[in-house]
Amino acid sequence: MTNTAGTSRVGIVGRITTRRPVLRIAAGQSSDRRADTLAVEEPLEIRIGGAPLAVTMRTPGHDVELAAGFLVSEGMIGGAGEFRSAIHCGGPGSGGDENTYNVLDVTLGEGARMPTADDARRFYTTSSCGVCGKASIDAVSTVSRFDVAGDPLEIDDRWITALPDRLRAGQEAFRKTGGLHAAALFDGSTGEMLVLREDVGRHNAVDKAVGWALLSGRLPLGGTVLQVSGRASFELVQKAVMAGIPVLSAVSAPSSLAVELAESSGLTLAGFVRGQTMNVYAHAQRIRITRSSVRSAADEEAMIDEH
Amino acid sequence: MTNTAGTSRVGIVGRITTRRPVLRIAAGQSSDRRADTLAVEEPLEIRIGGAPLAVTMRTPGHDVELAAGFLVSEGMIGGAGEFRSAIHCGGPGSGGDENTYNVLDVTLGEGARMPTADDARRFYTTSSCGVCGKASIDAVSTVSRFDVAGDPLEIDDRWITALPDRLRAGQEAFRKTGGLHAAALFDGSTGEMLVLREDVGRHNAVDKAVGWALLSGRLPLGGTVLQVSGRASFELVQKAVMAGIPVLSAVSAPSSLAVELAESSGLTLAGFVRGQTMNVYAHAQRIRITRSSVRSAADEEAMIDEH
Repeated sequence: MTNTAGTSRVGIVGRITTRRPVLRIAAGQSSDRRADTLAVEEPLEIRIGGAPLAVTMRTPGHDVELAAGFLVSEGMIGGAGEFRSAIHCGGPGSGGDENTYNVLDVTLGEGARMPTADDARRFYTTSSCGVCGKASIDAVSTVSRFDVAGDPLEIDDRWITALPDRLRAGQEAFRKTGGLHAAALFDGSTGEMLVLREDVGRHNAVDKAVGWALLSGRLPLGGTVLQVSGRASFELVQKAVMAGIPVLSAVSAPSSLAVELAESSGLTLAGFVRGQTMNVYAHAQRIRITRSSVRSAADEEAMIDEH
Repeated sequence: MTNTAGTSRVGIVGRITTRRPVLRIAAGQSSDRRADTLAVEEPLEIRIGGAPLAVTMRTPGHDVELAAGFLVSEGMIGGAGEFRSAIHCGGPGSGGDENTYNVLDVTLGEGARMPTADDARRFYTTSSCGVCGKASIDAVSTVSRFDVAGDPLEIDDRWITALPDRLRAGQEAFRKTGGLHAAALFDGSTGEMLVLREDVGRHNAVDKAVGWALLSGRLPLGGTVLQVSGRASFELVQKAVMAGIPVLSAVSAPSSLAVELAESSGLTLAGFVRGQTMNVYAHAQRIRITRSSVRSAADEEAMIDEH
């Protein structure tokens, strides 16, 4: 249905936000018509050597990073040399510029693992148990190139609980639209924010951050912390593990399979990171607790008795 | 890698929540270890006549509805007669029950459109423009079986703004985990809640609600309102249009392409539905504004002058 005829290098920077008319209704009070700023969502087709691999609904911008990070998450590449080039290309017969930034054709380099027909199902399926959570976890550990479990990073709890505010402060487009997820990488030693990316899809935001690291020659991301704006699903933990990130911090709840994958991979997983508190679901040994004590079950029972 | 050998009917009800140990850290105060309730996430493989079609990470439960709603969203079926049966099946050589509920094999009935190799890309790609938002919108209108634009439903603004609280009140699993999205269908005439479904994936929650409608013989869902817990993406609007739902109400922001698809399909799209207010992004004619007035631009300028 499409091919790569008419491929050309273009320099269009995708729009991240757009304005649309909206009717605001406040019951019993008033209503007015005005322009509202929305997060842009457009399909991106990722091709490898001209062959379609995947389509994702994403916020335009940082598309090359998005494709690179996606390929890292899928285990196809693990270093900058394996990602040779990427060009935006138009469809057949396209004359205008309306579609030239929605197809990205990637050329892989030496060492890359070419995709197979079974790729879409690889992370969920094994011959022994069909489809199950354990198969998904086993697949990640089989495909992963980097050692997360051995990462010696240690960080203070208060440094982590400050990350959501730093993430939000950096979210330009979210402030305008309220409609964008974000992911940011932090250096666990210096405390510095390395990169922040926004997208309508939370998986895309993480792919863009990981892709930035690959293209900057910073993979694997040992010693870093990934902060995300939403929940921690299996796929977000998978992306962290595949990029060699030892700590994932999420503003909201993790799923059961996210916790199981973190546990088995050696990744530190924190959820409900809000205000001064967080829940640590796996590998809490990387978190130094400041000015506090870890109560034992006996202490808790004693406290309950006191009340 | 998998086949349908060993297919058997099983009656396992998937767990929606599970408990895991968690370390709660409150900086400068205290920490304790306790059990936390998490939303369960497991892969589900949907097969058609034994052939794998898709894998989704979902919260177990209502899997048949999930598969049915997914097939409606993809334009493959549009009535209960086109969905003949669905059975959970184990993988080859499986003896235990750990995986028998993660593969669902669907048998389609007369009138169903069998999937093609191009299905995954169909909603995003046309031969004329490659991949673009307009192609995605055109594809939905081409594939859709039901007329949303002609739906005469009218509802009060205050009834809509009350829906998020009704949704939240019905979310059993969210209260325990904080980690589940929800979707509920409401009858726009009687005000009654028809069905509520929860899932770690917001798309899955909508598929489950639509699948419930299909299996109950209630498709198309004319005269109903779909309330969702999160944002309104292109794919959620697509699912509403494909099921014949005329009004979509979201707690958070819509994306640009969600608004464009709603506009062109004749669907009423409300976002930021919170407290007493909402933003209407498309087809506000279905919403009756109570005890309020629609200000003109001239009125607004006059107000600004006064301040």
